[in-house]
Amino acid sequence: MKNEHVIDKFGEDLENYLPGLSVDCVILGYKNDELYTLVLRWKDSDSWSLPGGFVKKDEDLDQAALHVLKQRTGLDLSFLKQLHVFGGKNRRDIKAIMPQLDGLKLNSGTKNWLKQRFISVAYLTLVNPDSFIPIPDYLSDSCEWRPINKMPKLIFDHKQMIDKAKNYIGVQIKYQPIGMSLLPKKFTMKTLQKLYEVVLDKTLDRANFQKKILKLGILNRHEKQMSGGAHKAPYLYSFNKIKYREFLESGIGFLS
Amino acid sequence: MKNEHVIDKFGEDLENYLPGLSVDCVILGYKNDELYTLVLRWKDSDSWSLPGGFVKKDEDLDQAALHVLKQRTGLDLSFLKQLHVFGGKNRRDIKAIMPQLDGLKLNSGTKNWLKQRFISVAYLTLVNPDSFIPIPDYLSDSCEWRPINKMPKLIFDHKQMIDKAKNYIGVQIKYQPIGMSLLPKKFTMKTLQKLYEVVLDKTLDRANFQKKILKLGILNRHEKQMSGGAHKAPYLYSFNKIKYREFLESGIGFLS
Repeated sequence: MKNEHVIDKFGEDLENYLPGLSVDCVILGYKNDELYTLVLRWKDSDSWSLPGGFVKKDEDLDQAALHVLKQRTGLDLSFLKQLHVFGGKNRRDIKAIMPQLDGLKLNSGTKNWLKQRFISVAYLTLVNPDSFIPIPDYLSDSCEWRPINKMPKLIFDHKQMIDKAKNYIGVQIKYQPIGMSLLPKKFTMKTLQKLYEVVLDKTLDRANFQKKILKLGILNRHEKQMSGGAHKAPYLYSFNKIKYREFLESGIGFLS
Repeated sequence: MKNEHVIDKFGEDLENYLPGLSVDCVILGYKNDELYTLVLRWKDSDSWSLPGGFVKKDEDLDQAALHVLKQRTGLDLSFLKQLHVFGGKNRRDIKAIMPQLDGLKLNSGTKNWLKQRFISVAYLTLVNPDSFIPIPDYLSDSCEWRPINKMPKLIFDHKQMIDKAKNYIGVQIKYQPIGMSLLPKKFTMKTLQKLYEVVLDKTLDRANFQKKILKLGILNRHEKQMSGGAHKAPYLYSFNKIKYREFLESGIGFLS
């Protein structure tokens, strides 16, 4: 089953949408020791974009972002974090997507609406790529995870949005726990350290990392992972949800 | 000299502005052991608001926030941080400001433009209240610092914007240095600790605070403050700008 249309009967009801305002979603995932982002390829083209869309006049902005994400990718969430508003006066080169707009056989009113200046509110969330199957909407040929370091060419300033998201979590990881929505329920210390190394873009000392992360009290220790010889099997851990959420709200400060 | 108009010849050139989009500025200051915010009182009324305004079609969003702030308060800055987009569909009760709009003798086109649904991008910065003299614009009777815990009634969701700013710096202070733009150039450890206590809304242990803040290396120690007896005079400190900016960018993490 195809998803609902981004704009029902594209172009016929644009008067129901706020003019000049879009939302775009940076959905970060983690697998194979890399960060990934969910991107869409426009029908019959090599144009890629983040899942984005418009805001209905009778809809809260944050709700619109959730709706757009669901409609365009099938991902159904209850919260997205506002990342940044991209509001540069020349941020959107409409010529870059004219072939696609032409392909949609839009009337001139619709084309003019789309040619306006838009500001876009970029949203961010982190998910485990194995937790759902992306479904492209009717405007797209595909919806897939791509490593953020090997991104295809994206329209407008979508690459900058991904860069902003990467920078954001690179700072956030230093004062907030990370991983609950990125990793499987149980994981080894090595897996968790690797995630930190990928996000921070540097290697960490094993003993020091383990000492500091355990000191936070956000991890529960479980049975050993039974794969290699039992004597060297690593412990499995999961997140202590209560403590994790406390730190998410309060931050892990240098004063604590 | 009065500042430039927020909208030159208010209402006559609204077609030069992006529809449905405003910016509002939360300017936090610190004095007398309290946090203050800069607010404007509308002419001949008891209506208070944050300094805010609209975005010209040929102007970057972030630039517009700087212009609006300068026009409405006289404060001339080169950077404001995006705090949050307030985009609730009912966030703006236009009836609350109808008396003021009536007082401006606007034509019906202008009134209708102002009655649209608006989303507002709230910006934040921290300044030393002694560093400039606020000047109200032609729409306002006054522009003044008010303690955020004793705010007059504000229009729309401006109180929520201030609350958001307070929460934001309450978390930020745990992983980023704070104070360079809030305090005088030289200050005592006691003054710095008091600022942390006000922002964190709790008392801190003196010895522990001093130990942890000195360990960061963001402070330069100077001569003693010569007021009381020399034997108990406290040292004066200033911020080490290079180290301070490093931490502003990278964050002070629990791993460092």
